Order: sequence, then C-alpha cells, then structure tokens
Amino acid sequence: MSALDWTHDPALRSWVESANAAGSDFPIQNLPLGVFRSRTARPTIGVAIGDQILDLRACIEARDLHGPEACRGETLNALMALPAGERRALRLAIAALLRADARRLEWLVPQSAVEMDVPARIGDYTDFYASVHHATRVGRRLRPESPLFPNYKWLPVAYHGRASSIVVSGTPVRRPSGQTHADGAPAPLFGPSRRLDYEAEIGFFLGPGGPLGASIPVGSADAHIVGACLVNDWSARDLQKWEYQPLGPFLAKSFATTISPWVVTMEALLPFRAPLSPRGPDDPAPLPYLAGAPDGGLGITVEVYLETPAMRDRGMPPVRVSTASFLDMYWTPAQMVTHHASNGCNLRPGDLLASGTVSGPAEESAGCLLERASAGEEPIALPSGERRAFLEDGDTVVMRAFCAREGFTRIGFGECRGSVVGP
Amino acid sequence: MSALDWTHDPALRSWVESANAAGSDFPIQNLPLGVFRSRTARPTIGVAIGDQILDLRACIEARDLHGPEACRGETLNALMALPAGERRALRLAIAALLRADARRLEWLVPQSAVEMDVPARIGDYTDFYASVHHATRVGRRLRPESPLFPNYKWLPVAYHGRASSIVVSGTPVRRPSGQTHADGAPAPLFGPSRRLDYEAEIGFFLGPGGPLGASIPVGSADAHIVGACLVNDWSARDLQKWEYQPLGPFLAKSFATTISPWVVTMEALLPFRAPLSPRGPDDPAPLPYLAGAPDGGLGITVEVYLETPAMRDRGMPPVRVSTASFLDMYWTPAQMVTHHASNGCNLRPGDLLASGTVSGPAEESAGCLLERASAGEEPIALPSGERRAFLEDGDTVVMRAFCAREGFTRIGFGECRGSVVGP
Repeated sequence: MSALDWTHDPALRSWVESANAAGSDFPIQNLPLGVFRSRTARPTIGVAIGDQILDLRACIEARDLHGPEACRGETLNALMALPAGERRALRLAIAALLRADARRLEWLVPQSAVEMDVPARIGDYTDFYASVHHATRVGRRLRPESPLFPNYKWLPVAYHGRASSIVVSGTPVRRPSGQTHADGAPAPLFGPSRRLDYEAEIGFFLGPGGPLGASIPVGSADAHIVGACLVNDWSARDLQKWEYQPLGPFLAKSFATTISPWVVTMEALLPFRAPLSPRGPDDPAPLPYLAGAPDGGLGITVEVYLETPAMRDRGMPPVRVSTASFLDMYWTPAQMVTHHASNGCNLRPGDLLASGTVSGPAEESAGCLLERASAGEEPIALPSGERRAFLEDGDTVVMRAFCAREGFTRIGFGECRGSVVGP
Repeated sequence: MSALDWTHDPALRSWVESANAAGSDFPIQNLPLGVFRSRTARPTIGVAIGDQILDLRACIEARDLHGPEACRGETLNALMALPAGERRALRLAIAALLRADARRLEWLVPQSAVEMDVPARIGDYTDFYASVHHATRVGRRLRPESPLFPNYKWLPVAYHGRASSIVVSGTPVRRPSGQTHADGAPAPLFGPSRRLDYEAEIGFFLGPGGPLGASIPVGSADAHIVGACLVNDWSARDLQKWEYQPLGPFLAKSFATTISPWVVTMEALLPFRAPLSPRGPDDPAPLPYLAGAPDGGLGITVEVYLETPAMRDRGMPPVRVSTASFLDMYWTPAQMVTHHASNGCNLRPGDLLASGTVSGPAEESAGCLLERASAGEEPIALPSGERRAFLEDGDTVVMRAFCAREGFTRIGFGECRGSVVGP
C-alpha cells in the first residue's frame, strides 16, 4: 500500500468552497469517483467535491487533465482495471486541479442537478458475513448452544449475490412477495414479505484482479481494491427462513440491493487504516494464506437512520437507529479478496464484494432490524411514538458512513437511501 | 409456446451433407446458436449444421439473410433479447437457407477449424437443485432420517453462482485449493482439493426477462428461455463440506463451471416437450404461481463419460459412467424462471440458469461422483482396471446430451468437455 502524501494534508483546501465546510462528506482529501447523468448527456465519470461534481470527461476533452483515457468512459470499469499506481496518479492529478491555489475550472456540475448511476458494470457481486457480532446474534436465535458454525473463525464465510438487482441510492424498493411458512403450518403461503429488513454493509469495488486459476497473496490484495461504498442488503427474513436450506439465501435478497453512488478510494481511506478490534484470546490465528498486514482494517463508522411516513408528515428528521465501527469486523477486506481468489476464482474490475452486516458488540451497533429489534420481539421505539419490528411500506432507510481521526480531515461516503413501496 | 412447423419435419434434409448423417448432433432440425472465433477474426455468431458452422454475420453482410441486426454481434446477448416470435422467425429463415433445395452458400466454416466462445456475456448465473433424486441421495448422507429439507417439494431451491469463472468446453480446469477440515481435527488445512467432482446439468440461457419489480407468470415463462446447453458444475466436495454453512456453496464451486458452446433453442426442443415423471402420491401440488403447463418438461438424455490418462495411453475411448433423463427432474425450466422472478428479481438476456445435477432414480443415472461412487465408499470400476472415487489429475470428463423421439429427428447438444490439471 502506498504511503500518505500531500493529498492527505488536513491543511489542504479547495477552490470549491463547499468542500472546505466542516462536516462535508467530500473535502479535497476525499475525491470519490462516481458516474452521473444529467438530463441530456450520456453517463459521465465525475469526482465529488463539496456539493459539486468535477466532470472528468470534460476535463480530459479540454486538456485540463491528461489521461487516463478511461476517465471518458460511461462506467468506472476501465478506470478500476488500471494498476493501483495509475489510480493513485489520477488522484494526485485531480487534487492538483482542485486545490485552492489552482485555476478555477468550469467543469463543475451541482450534485443536486444530476442523477447518479450504479458506478460500474458489476460482473459478480459477492456478499460476505464478516461481522462476528452479527453472525453470533443471528446464529443465537437458531442455535443457542453454538451460534457460530465451526468454520466461522477460520474463513470469511460468503455467498454469491445477485448483480442484476443492484440499484443506486434513491431507487424505490418494492416489497417482495414469496413463499413463507409458519411453524407447524401444513403448507407455505405465497404473498408479500412481512419481515422486510435492511442490512448496513460496506462494499468494495475490485480493481485489476487476475486470470482464472491465479490466487492473490494477502500482502498484495489491497492493490486489487479500488474503493468502498455503502450497501443496503435488503432482506426478507420470512422468505429467507423458509428457503435458505441447504444452499443459502436466494430470493430473500435478490429483489434489491442498494449502493451509495460514490466510490471512496482506498487512497482516501489510507489515513484510516488500523488494526481490527482484537480477537478473543481463544480465537485461532488465521491460516498462513490469510495472515495479512496488522493494519488491514478500516476505521469507518457506519450509521443507519430510519424515517417513517408519520415522521415525514410531522417534519421530523430521520432518526439514527444504529452506529457501528467497521473495525469490529472479524475479517479485513484484504482477507476477503485473498480468500475469494484462493481457489483460483477470477476477480474482475468492477466486481463488488460486500462485507456483510456491520454490527458491533453493543445493541445500538446492530446493523439490521433482525438484531436491533430482536427478531421482532423488541420493536424499536421511534420519536414519533411508533415502533418498528420490521420495515413498513413508506419507510425510508438512510445509511451514512464516515472516517474521522485526530490530525486528519473527516471524509464521508454520502448516503445510501431507499424507501419501501408496497407490493 | 409456438407449435411445430416444417423445420421439425423429419424428412427435411440439408445441402450440408454431414447434417444428414444418422446420429449427427446438428441436423437441420436443430440449428443451435453459438459464437466462434477463427485465428484472425473477431467473435462471430454462427449456427451449427452437421460438422460445419454457418457464419451469420457473413450471411447478413452478403444479404443472404435479412436481419435481425443482432446476428452481427460478438455475443448472443442481443439475439437473446429479441421477443420469442423474432427468434422463431430467425430459425425459419436459417432453415430456409440450409434446406436441401436451397442454393449452396459459401458462408460455412468447419467446426474443426475454429475455437468456440462462451456464447453470451452472462450477467448472472443461477444454479438450481431441481433433481429430487440428487437432492435425496446427497441429503441422505448428511441427514439419513430426513434427506430433504421441508421446503424442497414446495419451491425450486437455488443459489447464485459465479459468472466470471464460466468457461467453454475444452478449457482445462485447474484443481482448486482451499480449506478442508477432517472430522475431529483441531484445525482446518489449506491445500489442493482431494474430492474433486463433476455435476452434469442442463443450463438455460434467458431471453427478454423483465424489469426490476416485475414477476413472470408461469404460463409465459417459456418465452423468456432462449435455449439450452450442457453445464459441468465442477465441485470440490471437501471444500464444500467445510465452507457451506450457513450461506451455501462458494469456493467449492466458483473455481470453474464448464458449458457446451451451442445453445439448442427452445424451438428445436419443441418436439421433445413432455410431462415430468409423475410426482409421488404424497407430494404436494405446486402453489398456484408455480402451476405450469403439463408438458413443461424436456425429454433430454444426459450422459457423462470419463477418460483417465491410462485409458488415453491405451487407446481406450471414454467410458460412459451415467445416463439420466431430464424428465426425472422435480421442477420444469418454466417453474424455475417464474420462481426466480417471483420476488421481482430482474432477469436479463444472457443470464444462465442451470438445473442442478441431473440424476434419476437408478444408481447408473446419478450425475455426479458423490452419488455415483457413494461419497468415495464405492469407487466406480473403469475398463482400464482403475477405480475412481473422485477425479484425479489428467482425468477428462465429457458430457453429452440428446433428444430422441419416435417420428422426429434426433438432435444433440454437442459436448461439454474438461480435463483436470494439477494444482
């Protein structure tokens, strides 16, 4: 991993004034990549800066930015395919364009004026299960005596997800229908899910990857990660309970997965690398192929906010229902990448790996309602006087994430938002 | 589904003589679609006829064939996106070009002179588990008292597979490494799989599909299936046993999946539609959304052949180790499609749905070694005097499939071939 450079200097400011505001998700130290679409134009790669977007295609065509040509694409895939060194060089070039002492460019578009796309053509989507706190709480309901399967602390458990139904923040999510089965009932029923849930996750877009048959050593795995976004892995718990054995979740998840539109690069996350929270004294050491760098974790705080129609009607802001640290995960992103490729599976630029629900040890850090409201037994109380065990039609879930560390400028992920519409 | 037409007439012959030979997989009644590549040309869509390929791009450019433009693509995706009626019209037009009384065209390429590609850009790959005989035999080893989970006879169980590692017939398959755990051992080990298996399946390439949020009624599901191919869902049983709980198979499958290159269209399969083998008297009727047409099954015979290096050295042909009927599946392709979209999941042209291992009730019809050799306990005997419990390096697995019915011309799938290379 490359070292810190001048783009991480907290004194660095931009000529885009909104980027210098305290609490902005997108100061010049961040520079996340995304794909935007204004009413008339084709999809365009941009960089978020304050409340604006720098249009990279326009920068290239005006020769304000000299390559790479991949900046002119309609998705981030070609950019993601670049070696880590070239991606870092692009960051430096963009920061040089936006720093306070640089010439003002006219290639800005207000974020409020455009729609965002899913930033890459996602070839394959893999969802991990890397929070031991989440896995333990979920497992305890099914197997109180041994909540974790014996494999959990040896390998990063994961499953293949559905790529076609990944949507960008803001897309309405229709309540899925499916088969559910009440305990003891003679037959299942088909109808709308009554246990609709969210899961707050961090997703990682992959870079170069490798050919079929090649593994990726854990020491170089970070070079194959381009950056991170928020993921809402919507889950229909009642469908899931009936369908998941023996091959895992399928229709309980595949109706929609929402991601935030901005890819916060690994370079921007560099100051926030840190060791994961210590494992338990009896936990096994990772096998050699997974024994990664000690600072392989990322200090990302993940928050979930909920807003009901009644709250909206009464002008109440969304209420935060959980906050968790990504350092409480059991596996690092590098370990996930290395495990994924350890059998020779080829990873491709634009593939998305999600972490699994980000939950910490505290109840308030539980990143899904199944945990947070104890599978419906302890509905959470909202400021409107309402309670929620699971999501109702009209509810809006907003996820936010940020990195903050003494001596560095806070950077944010923007938001990952979705509202539930009726079946 | 459209009715039989003159292209299904067994008296129909082609001016491509090799197509008229008894036992040819590709008579004029078949006309499967594929993508081939000669040394200098870019990927090209073609139709198999006897031992030749009709180059559709050349036909279009010479105006021997009048559209659709999608025939000029480098993958079948745009063709697959066409409505079923247009795909049928294309079949009729191609058959008219190739029938014995038509003018000879020069747009033929010998199959032996080209390499085949995976025929479509596969957005998502889904693998079902639709053989009750397979599920029962596999389940019996883990849960003798109740081999099938309670959901099995109510819904077509499936999981998302890995699209990136789908390769075309003939591609060598590297033995994967991964974590395995011996019963009672204090820790797992990382190393090459010692229980490498094949699974013989039928895959279905999807057509138009629909937008996110829309379901597909079972009565119209067949219009969203373009055609079928063979699938070898290579499986590392020892990796699978350790990793699969609770989220299903992952690295045990994602190292490679081999498919045959020719897409046998649903129009070609029309004469071979038939009811599935009767369900048991106590089996439940499908829920209304899955209650499909009575002839939703396909009379496809699936064969697996094995060849070891010793057999090759001694000039012995591959030996058939199993033969199964696709009518012994528990669910039809239409039911799989409808269930898949029942939660609103969007299916896209070029998506691949595989059936799961095709196994029948007889021991000789078991489509994987786990069943066929009783999980290693009863290795199968080969004509070379060797025995096989699982695959060894150098072994070649060849799958073949065909449809035969009195009064119709036999059609074949070609072969799905893969050889195991060392780790």
